[in-house]
Amino acid sequence: MTSVLQSYVGGRWVGQEAAQALHSAVNGRAVASTHAEPLDFAEALSHARRKGLPALLAMDFQERAARLRALAKYLNEHKEQLYAISAHTGATRADSWIDIEGGAGTLVAYAGMGSNELPSGNLVHEGPAVPLGKKGAFAGTHILVPRGGVAVHINAFNFPVWGLLEKFAPSFLAGMPCIGKPATATSYLTEAMVRLMVDSGLLPEGSLQLVIGGTGDLLDRLEGSDVVTFTGSADTAARLRVHPNLVRHSIPFNAEADSLNCAILAPDVTPDDEEFDLFVKEVAREMTVKAGQKCTAIRRAIVPRQHLDAVAERLRARLAKTVVGDPAREDVRMGALASKSQQQDVAERVALLMQGAELVFGERDGFAPVGEDVGEGAFFAPTLLLSRKPLEHDAAHDVEAFGPVSTLMPYDGIDEALQLAARGKGSLVGTLVTRDPATAARIVPAVAALHGRWLVLDREAAAESTGHGSPLPMLKHGGPGRAGGGEELGGIRAVKHYLQRTAVQGSPSMITAITGEYMRGAKRQEEELHPFRKHFEDLAIGDSLLTHRRTVSEADIVAFGGLSGDYFYMHFDEIAAKASPFGKRIAHGYFVLSAAAGLFVSPAPGPVLANYGLDTLRFVKPVGIGDTIRARLTCKRKIDRRRKDANGQGQGVVAWDVEVTNQDDEVVASYDILTLVAKRA
Amino acid sequence: MTSVLQSYVGGRWVGQEAAQALHSAVNGRAVASTHAEPLDFAEALSHARRKGLPALLAMDFQERAARLRALAKYLNEHKEQLYAISAHTGATRADSWIDIEGGAGTLVAYAGMGSNELPSGNLVHEGPAVPLGKKGAFAGTHILVPRGGVAVHINAFNFPVWGLLEKFAPSFLAGMPCIGKPATATSYLTEAMVRLMVDSGLLPEGSLQLVIGGTGDLLDRLEGSDVVTFTGSADTAARLRVHPNLVRHSIPFNAEADSLNCAILAPDVTPDDEEFDLFVKEVAREMTVKAGQKCTAIRRAIVPRQHLDAVAERLRARLAKTVVGDPAREDVRMGALASKSQQQDVAERVALLMQGAELVFGERDGFAPVGEDVGEGAFFAPTLLLSRKPLEHDAAHDVEAFGPVSTLMPYDGIDEALQLAARGKGSLVGTLVTRDPATAARIVPAVAALHGRWLVLDREAAAESTGHGSPLPMLKHGGPGRAGGGEELGGIRAVKHYLQRTAVQGSPSMITAITGEYMRGAKRQEEELHPFRKHFEDLAIGDSLLTHRRTVSEADIVAFGGLSGDYFYMHFDEIAAKASPFGKRIAHGYFVLSAAAGLFVSPAPGPVLANYGLDTLRFVKPVGIGDTIRARLTCKRKIDRRRKDANGQGQGVVAWDVEVTNQDDEVVASYDILTLVAKRA
Repeated sequence: MTSVLQSYVGGRWVGQEAAQALHSAVNGRAVASTHAEPLDFAEALSHARRKGLPALLAMDFQERAARLRALAKYLNEHKEQLYAISAHTGATRADSWIDIEGGAGTLVAYAGMGSNELPSGNLVHEGPAVPLGKKGAFAGTHILVPRGGVAVHINAFNFPVWGLLEKFAPSFLAGMPCIGKPATATSYLTEAMVRLMVDSGLLPEGSLQLVIGGTGDLLDRLEGSDVVTFTGSADTAARLRVHPNLVRHSIPFNAEADSLNCAILAPDVTPDDEEFDLFVKEVAREMTVKAGQKCTAIRRAIVPRQHLDAVAERLRARLAKTVVGDPAREDVRMGALASKSQQQDVAERVALLMQGAELVFGERDGFAPVGEDVGEGAFFAPTLLLSRKPLEHDAAHDVEAFGPVSTLMPYDGIDEALQLAARGKGSLVGTLVTRDPATAARIVPAVAALHGRWLVLDREAAAESTGHGSPLPMLKHGGPGRAGGGEELGGIRAVKHYLQRTAVQGSPSMITAITGEYMRGAKRQEEELHPFRKHFEDLAIGDSLLTHRRTVSEADIVAFGGLSGDYFYMHFDEIAAKASPFGKRIAHGYFVLSAAAGLFVSPAPGPVLANYGLDTLRFVKPVGIGDTIRARLTCKRKIDRRRKDANGQGQGVVAWDVEVTNQDDEVVASYDILTLVAKRA
Repeated sequence: MTSVLQSYVGGRWVGQEAAQALHSAVNGRAVASTHAEPLDFAEALSHARRKGLPALLAMDFQERAARLRALAKYLNEHKEQLYAISAHTGATRADSWIDIEGGAGTLVAYAGMGSNELPSGNLVHEGPAVPLGKKGAFAGTHILVPRGGVAVHINAFNFPVWGLLEKFAPSFLAGMPCIGKPATATSYLTEAMVRLMVDSGLLPEGSLQLVIGGTGDLLDRLEGSDVVTFTGSADTAARLRVHPNLVRHSIPFNAEADSLNCAILAPDVTPDDEEFDLFVKEVAREMTVKAGQKCTAIRRAIVPRQHLDAVAERLRARLAKTVVGDPAREDVRMGALASKSQQQDVAERVALLMQGAELVFGERDGFAPVGEDVGEGAFFAPTLLLSRKPLEHDAAHDVEAFGPVSTLMPYDGIDEALQLAARGKGSLVGTLVTRDPATAARIVPAVAALHGRWLVLDREAAAESTGHGSPLPMLKHGGPGRAGGGEELGGIRAVKHYLQRTAVQGSPSMITAITGEYMRGAKRQEEELHPFRKHFEDLAIGDSLLTHRRTVSEADIVAFGGLSGDYFYMHFDEIAAKASPFGKRIAHGYFVLSAAAGLFVSPAPGPVLANYGLDTLRFVKPVGIGDTIRARLTCKRKIDRRRKDANGQGQGVVAWDVEVTNQDDEVVASYDILTLVAKRA
């Protein structure tokens, strides 16, 4: 008896009666089945909107980032449950590691980005605000706020865990409830993971729902504030993209589709170079990891014609050593395809590719999956093809066999290599193996327009390379053209995809109130108490101090030069300084900075724990001998990352706007200083 | 006899034989006609790809920015030709100013953004590059490169000049040839403008083509590297979005559609406040400028119920004083709609809106266009409606009359105002009139998710406000949902829309070679010659200097405190410093910075003209008494903005990476310094 998978919708697990059976990729036996009960998508959306959304927005970016980190820890603690189930998908332990621990690692990466790069609160100020008039009464800037809708994530079968988590993480961080719909074939693994996530108690109810089986009328019920993402085939992407309801409401639809990714061996690499073997290893690895079922796998290996035989020979040798079979066995390096239907599909596509190609390595080379019970498994032999005239062989650039299949292609001259790369018509990723930075600097900008990501591999990078096929949470994932045109995955940009960007115009005081960031020209508060004497909680944006003045003398310049060792002619050489555009000796910029600190410092111990940095310093006007300067210090921005120092002292980040002016009220230096300020409690 | 308009395709003007006649909006007489000759779009695209693209990419961002500036100057010099033609569209001089000088101003704005915010060359490094491993051998970053395709811009009839220029500017800057297709009704004005642009000799051949009439099979011929933008009705946007060829190749399609924009009068404003009249003026202006034919116009004026009568009364009075008629007359404040068919359309929509609304002001209030020859003109009376139960009146939120038409709606309490705003289902822009920053801080983040832009108007901002209806080149233009979901207009983000973003991974040396920006860990060159002695042309990325050392003593701290006036306890108070997390007195951060400058300065006059700024300074570790520091200075980034100083000395910007380390080779301070470096020639 196999278990019936359940959807998690409307706050409860739905599904008792079996519908479609799902089979082990290794031995063909039924593993689980989908449920027969139809889902109420109106209820699912209403649950997301009424429960999930308010619960998510009751937290802020920092709190949601902390939840992601806790969730990753929980999943890692329970990972063996997932590994056990993952074996049924045909994945080896190493394959499952990418999916399971890679998925948890993605949560950790987004937790870090959220905590370090996003503010506290639920509004991102994408500044700086800029004046829109000459008098400073009117200004503009951009804010990003939660969209207030629901994210529907439709995923592929190859990464049942990571596939959902790489989209859940940025949308959750952005404050958007998610409805995840895994591909049915391997949905039993996604269901197990979502069960863990729900059981963790870390997710606000309604923030994640799971759909096992079809999406019914879900897409028909979406609104303008919702978003849809899709990972899978280009055909399905094209079908979903024109869904009338998505089109009617301009609902963002982002696709990440399989593509015919390439790897290029540069002409500078000889068979004796370490890089030559790096190329061979990378191609072989991309063919065999996940049995080649990666939308990022290398489908086209583009090599200098003079090295074609050497590459083919070394690849043959390497593939011949790859043990294929039951992924539970320790000696096995490549498991099965995800299902018998995939096996059939890959075989058909190899047949299409063979029209115009030769077989370098394949089933005939002694293919026999190892294991006790693999007769009904969906195994497929690593298959290396060779297309001798690749510019005339359309199928090599258009037909994707989604399995352990790759085609070798010779080129003459870099331009031909570029031409072949471009025949992919838009790819997720490409690789260049070269020793020569100048070759990289020529090839990469030329291929970049058709690729979402590009890896340059040499012996130095190889020590730590994460490989051609692995998207990273901090880098863009998604490519142009055939790859679907998406770029909503990777980095803080991915989080912003789930936020709405809005331009805001108004007076500096209004801009300051809305963004929570002081803009020059806005109203300030000046009190008796020095703002450096206030704790984090007590500081208000706009709290300000105008210091006493200081006249800069020749003695200051001389003393500062003597102390710093900086005897630059502009400060010390009357003759050369006179001939310079300033026409006279001027004070050191760093003296002005130091003197300003002397003007606004509050010397006794207090809540300001450290000045740890400084941003966007500009020396706007020179300060000459006899000029009189003063500083204005204004509380500009507060970020509460909920952190404590080693002594358990709670603290927050406060950025201060500093303007140093001269006797004519002209700004001479302008910058932000960054401080850590203690909390009262 | 009227002239036959010509398309500019394949490097020549096409069109002799008249097809459809285009009529003056003012007097109904024929102004021009479209041409009957069909266009060869295969030729147009081939011309753009083979001539326009290489010519654009033979220049760099800086050169294209300079061309935009020169083009604006040329258009401004010839603007009276355009004003003369613009009158036929029904536009007053003030309306035409928005279109014509606003269009030229947009070119200037993009020229400025390109020159100040983009590098020299044709590759944008969107850094910083980040290490992807623990040893620093592998790193990642993002680059943006020209897409290598063609931009097709399909525009609306209301701004024949600005409409094309606001899209041409960012795509030209990005290095993308454009094919512009204006709405036919007013294409005679666009044709005149493109003729000026071509005659200027400033545009590389093939970088701009003009289509008068239909687009034939143009969209069927596009490829994955191309892009399409559309401005116009939501219906047409929805039709184009599902174009099979665009979908097949994931060709980016961005739409900016009409929307039912709102303005909210906040509850804090009383009829005695200046802000009350600002609200009335803004609504009246948005109704009458361009005869209300703006996709950004205020269609819904949302006011507190208690002030409904007062607002209605003042609006009536203001509209009654608006002189409508021949826009050539100086006393006329509002001209005609663009065509008789628009007149018909607006009348039908007003009839729809009236089902559930009252007429506050309209045709019956003495409407009579002034002018000698206006009998056949497409005039329409300013029409103010009142919807007393706006939450029950669907048409008020769904039916857009694209003319001088707006609907007043009362609300009770802010939540109801927010609810009414949201009924627009996604708008380009909204306005809040308030005196109170706290009200703005509450309302704006709440409405932002459904708006592309939001204006806050008070007496302070009013002095320089550019108004509700005017998109600005540096701010986002485009809104979610009904407004089309686009955000490709406004700011450097608009330029990036026409570039392809690609993640790049590799060793720091490879990343440095590709991006042209030094990354720590990459190979450096150290020569006898101090890099500050090299001219701009001779400096290479990675040129580096490791300075001599300096031991920081107690005397340094004392002297620096005395000179700067900074007696902060961490530097001077043994007792308090001991109790701090550092556990001892430490040197001033600004001393470390100043001493580092003393270590790497090259005192005699030389090519480095000024250190004008400093970015991302972080004090990574404290420097204690007895610590020995040194600095490493490395040429990080060069930007050649082709600028000269007052003496005609050519110069470029050079950013230097600075690492200050201690005796244990630990980084204590890290920052970039910005310098101006003289050119040899």
